Amino acid sequence: MKVKNTAIILLHAPEDGGIVPAVIEFVLDNKGQIKKLDQHVMEDNKHLFMRIEWLLDDFTIPRDKIGEFFETLIASRYGMTWSLHFREKKTRVALFVSKYSHCFHDILSRFESGEWDIEIPIIISNHDKFRYVAERYNIHYHHLPITKQNKREQEEIELKLLNEHNIDLIVLARYMQVLTNEFIDHYPNRIINIHHSSLPAFAGADPYGSAFRRGVKFMGATAHYATEDLDEGPIIVQDVIPISHRDTIREMKRKGKDIEKQVLAQAVWAHLNYNVLTFKNKTVVFQ
Amino acid sequence: MKVKNTAIILLHAPEDGGIVPAVIEFVLDNKGQIKKLDQHVMEDNKHLFMRIEWLLDDFTIPRDKIGEFFETLIASRYGMTWSLHFREKKTRVALFVSKYSHCFHDILSRFESGEWDIEIPIIISNHDKFRYVAERYNIHYHHLPITKQNKREQEEIELKLLNEHNIDLIVLARYMQVLTNEFIDHYPNRIINIHHSSLPAFAGADPYGSAFRRGVKFMGATAHYATEDLDEGPIIVQDVIPISHRDTIREMKRKGKDIEKQVLAQAVWAHLNYNVLTFKNKTVVFQ
Amino acid sequence: MKVKNTAIILLHAPEDGGIVPAVIEFVLDNKGQIKKLDQHVMEDNKHLFMRIEWLLDDFTIPRDKIGEFFETLIASRYGMTWSLHFREKKTRVALFVSKYSHCFHDILSRFESGEWDIEIPIIISNHDKFRYVAERYNIHYHHLPITKQNKREQEEIELKLLNEHNIDLIVLARYMQVLTNEFIDHYPNRIINIHHSSLPAFAGADPYGSAFRRGVKFMGATAHYATEDLDEGPIIVQDVIPISHRDTIREMKRKGKDIEKQVLAQAVWAHLNYNVLTFKNKTVVFQ
Amino acid sequence: MKVKNTAIILLHAPEDGGIVPAVIEFVLDNKGQIKKLDQHVMEDNKHLFMRIEWLLDDFTIPRDKIGEFFETLIASRYGMTWSLHFREKKTRVALFVSKYSHCFHDILSRFESGEWDIEIPIIISNHDKFRYVAERYNIHYHHLPITKQNKREQEEIELKLLNEHNIDLIVLARYMQVLTNEFIDHYPNRIINIHHSSLPAFAGADPYGSAFRRGVKFMGATAHYATEDLDEGPIIVQDVIPISHRDTIREMKRKGKDIEKQVLAQAVWAHLNYNVLTFKNKTVVFQ
Repeated sequence: MKVKNTAIILLHAPEDGGIVPAVIEFVLDNKGQIKKLDQHVMEDNKHLFMRIEWLLDDFTIPRDKIGEFFETLIASRYGMTWSLHFREKKTRVALFVSKYSHCFHDILSRFESGEWDIEIPIIISNHDKFRYVAERYNIHYHHLPITKQNKREQEEIELKLLNEHNIDLIVLARYMQVLTNEFIDHYPNRIINIHHSSLPAFAGADPYGSAFRRGVKFMGATAHYATEDLDEGPIIVQDVIPISHRDTIREMKRKGKDIEKQVLAQAVWAHLNYNVLTFKNKTVVFQ
Repeated sequence: MKVKNTAIILLHAPEDGGIVPAVIEFVLDNKGQIKKLDQHVMEDNKHLFMRIEWLLDDFTIPRDKIGEFFETLIASRYGMTWSLHFREKKTRVALFVSKYSHCFHDILSRFESGEWDIEIPIIISNHDKFRYVAERYNIHYHHLPITKQNKREQEEIELKLLNEHNIDLIVLARYMQVLTNEFIDHYPNRIINIHHSSLPAFAGADPYGSAFRRGVKFMGATAHYATEDLDEGPIIVQDVIPISHRDTIREMKRKGKDIEKQVLAQAVWAHLNYNVLTFKNKTVVFQ
Repeated sequence: MKVKNTAIILLHAPEDGGIVPAVIEFVLDNKGQIKKLDQHVMEDNKHLFMRIEWLLDDFTIPRDKIGEFFETLIASRYGMTWSLHFREKKTRVALFVSKYSHCFHDILSRFESGEWDIEIPIIISNHDKFRYVAERYNIHYHHLPITKQNKREQEEIELKLLNEHNIDLIVLARYMQVLTNEFIDHYPNRIINIHHSSLPAFAGADPYGSAFRRGVKFMGATAHYATEDLDEGPIIVQDVIPISHRDTIREMKRKGKDIEKQVLAQAVWAHLNYNVLTFKNKTVVFQ
Repeated sequence: MKVKNTAIILLHAPEDGGIVPAVIEFVLDNKGQIKKLDQHVMEDNKHLFMRIEWLLDDFTIPRDKIGEFFETLIASRYGMTWSLHFREKKTRVALFVSKYSHCFHDILSRFESGEWDIEIPIIISNHDKFRYVAERYNIHYHHLPITKQNKREQEEIELKLLNEHNIDLIVLARYMQVLTNEFIDHYPNRIINIHHSSLPAFAGADPYGSAFRRGVKFMGATAHYATEDLDEGPIIVQDVIPISHRDTIREMKRKGKDIEKQVLAQAVWAHLNYNVLTFKNKTVVFQ
């Protein structure tokens, strides 16, 4: 049902009218059948973003040579930043969780039902609370409590675990710890966080309380790649819902759970399908 | 068609279970027929907000005595802040405009078509640009250019004009001047401003540019009562629309016009129907 | 945290200005502290809907006499249809499921995390597929395959099970079988179904395919009480999302899962909190 | 500011990987600078849709030869259906209106403010009501009352007027008359109608009343190209807003006006920018 045997190239480069046809012809000339093509030019800085996905069935360049050929024949000519992905390869996801379970359960359900065709080899938490859930799914659960004193050491353990499990993507499913820059630098644009406000409004702690006190009429959630500046990373997905004077903080928290899990899931889905490019702290998210 | 001969009381007071029945019975006992009843208790500060509208046809207290009786028999007992309004009385609106016309035209269309049953005796602008529009509708147009030096003087003239025309409500239809506190103090909760972002995000100048640079996935507009702190007044209505990497600043400005005029119109409509109460820099907006 | 010891009365009756104060005073005079009050008058048929919730702590009428007293003193005077509920009593929910798991998992997560303070004694399915999930939660799982020939018999078994487990509410979590009228009559306004379109558009089978072929720009989901006419019951909650020419049927089904589970959860939540009244095939849903 | 001197080609054709590079190279090889490129493949019927816009400044094919060259060199090879447009050429719009003014005023405001860079040479109405509005803008106003008996004759007059004024696009701004097939056939995919429901729900007369009686929780509006089957044409834009039991039919009509004018304006804007392609009663709307 789902097309499996495809390759995807994500690229961006200074705009040059010739890039799109050059990339298309790279695929066609080597007997690739294009499944999906997306491109976008950012008007203000004349920068091109492109995504192309093609069937590998009759492709004449061997799979393990595609990157080398693309770099030599195309990418180097245009000064591209690019990456190559294969649909067949399942993304290996690490889940980080603290004490809130709504995003955590939601992701596990999508995994279990096959809605997301991924692997989740490992769950990391600063609490032992959800070990029993991990056990249901036969996922390794690592309880690594964090204090100011031990953060760097615990992160070293985490990095070792992530490395051992060949993790491609880290999802912070309401993981309530700030990661150090050293940690983040190991997974640039590969750590997705969910913040429970429509950033840049109500960054930092207690966004629901702050939104309540300000008397706003909309509340939201933001999924973004984690960067060195807290709540400042490139935004992947946002969504909002209307609220009114009738909504207490408790009610906002309840409603917020639903929007948090939706927004996080949409962002992870976009990433899993190689639809996201980042550039200058912004994202291009193809559909 | 529209029920005309009704009175409306808006009130708020420290919560006391007895207020709602006391107010209802004040109306019923004097042969008022209740058309609409709304109430809300803010949980955190135990404060009651209430709106009651009733037909005056058989009401036994004379119209010009209702306020006195209500104060004596009810309001004073419960420490209420309250106001009395008559549906029959048309709200007299002053429009302030600069060089953007979308909100301005939108309001005038609603006025002309009878969608809003108001009077607009006066339009004030720091530019002469829209005098010809005012002339179409036989509305007085006052061109009062503002500089740092003359702001207080020009505002004095404006206040005099507003007073002469018995203005009930000032609508800042993208009026690009900051009002002084002295001016605002004359019309507490009676000046509605439209800000072109979903506050508190992107307060101040150039919200569309800032939103574009941050790479947000939603943009919005906020209608609020003007207060001494710029962009900090009680929010009446907000709305948002999704945007993507495809939206340039120019496109955001174009889309923004539509959401600005919708949000401003909804806020003015809520005010015109006496559906808005303010308390501690927040609003209760009944429907 | 959550207020427990409250009673709730839901009522509707031909409009009479005196009902609201009469009900309030019934509570206040007997030393009930009102937690929440909602009322609405349907303009066209002059019908009042009301919900009142109050603390029982100092209430002078014994809990098991409240109904009798309310009927005698208040309800009978005004020709009310009414029901009395106690917050403390956990709603006992039966889940019906077929082969789609998204709504099913979503509800179980809300149950497990304590977001919903309910009991789920029983899961009924026409497939054996999700028995292992039921076992995780120690919930009875009954596999009752349905054919044209055995539907009435199987439903008899179901009714017996529902009765044994004192079920208050049946949630059809994408249960792909049509229930007979005989079955539905046992649980009027107590069976919530989710339909995967924004009714009345695309009633019946294959709503996503039909929506795709018509080329609509929005798709949605509808939660409603099951009635004798398929997809015609009183609508409790609807929601929609934008789609475009880019959305294939497969993509619509994927997105639809998220909106289905959200809408169903919102409807169940409204029911669990005694916020829903039905009248003439429509609902009043208080917030 | 706005790029003026561009050409746009809209095309669709049976999918063939080579079309996109062929069209790009047609532009690049003749020294056209591409401003915007959009393409989409409908998965189910393997059909390609494409829009390309390029600067004509250095383009080596003379403007009046572009069509001929494109047909010969590109279109005929791939069996394309295509059209060529020049940004510089202002679209000439005819407005049809009856007695509702909200869409009518909204469009005229966009025209007057320069938000839409169009010409409106003519307004046609079955009532004389808005002649004074047309006079404000110096637009010809033709009052052509329609009866069952005279419809064909009046339409003949309308067609003659539209022809005399070189009309490109007809906008039915809540024009309450059904057009004959003979009339529609003169302007295929060039007549935009606004229907006041989220089609296919509540087609035909009185959609607000029907929506109210069904008790739906969302209402909407639909802009579509007029076709022989009433309310069945290709949908260009839809939008919806939430409603509740609190909304009377009168309130729905009031809120509906805002959504009608928004949806109609968005559809006209998409058409004016040559972003809409139709195929098998569906649209592809590029952004």
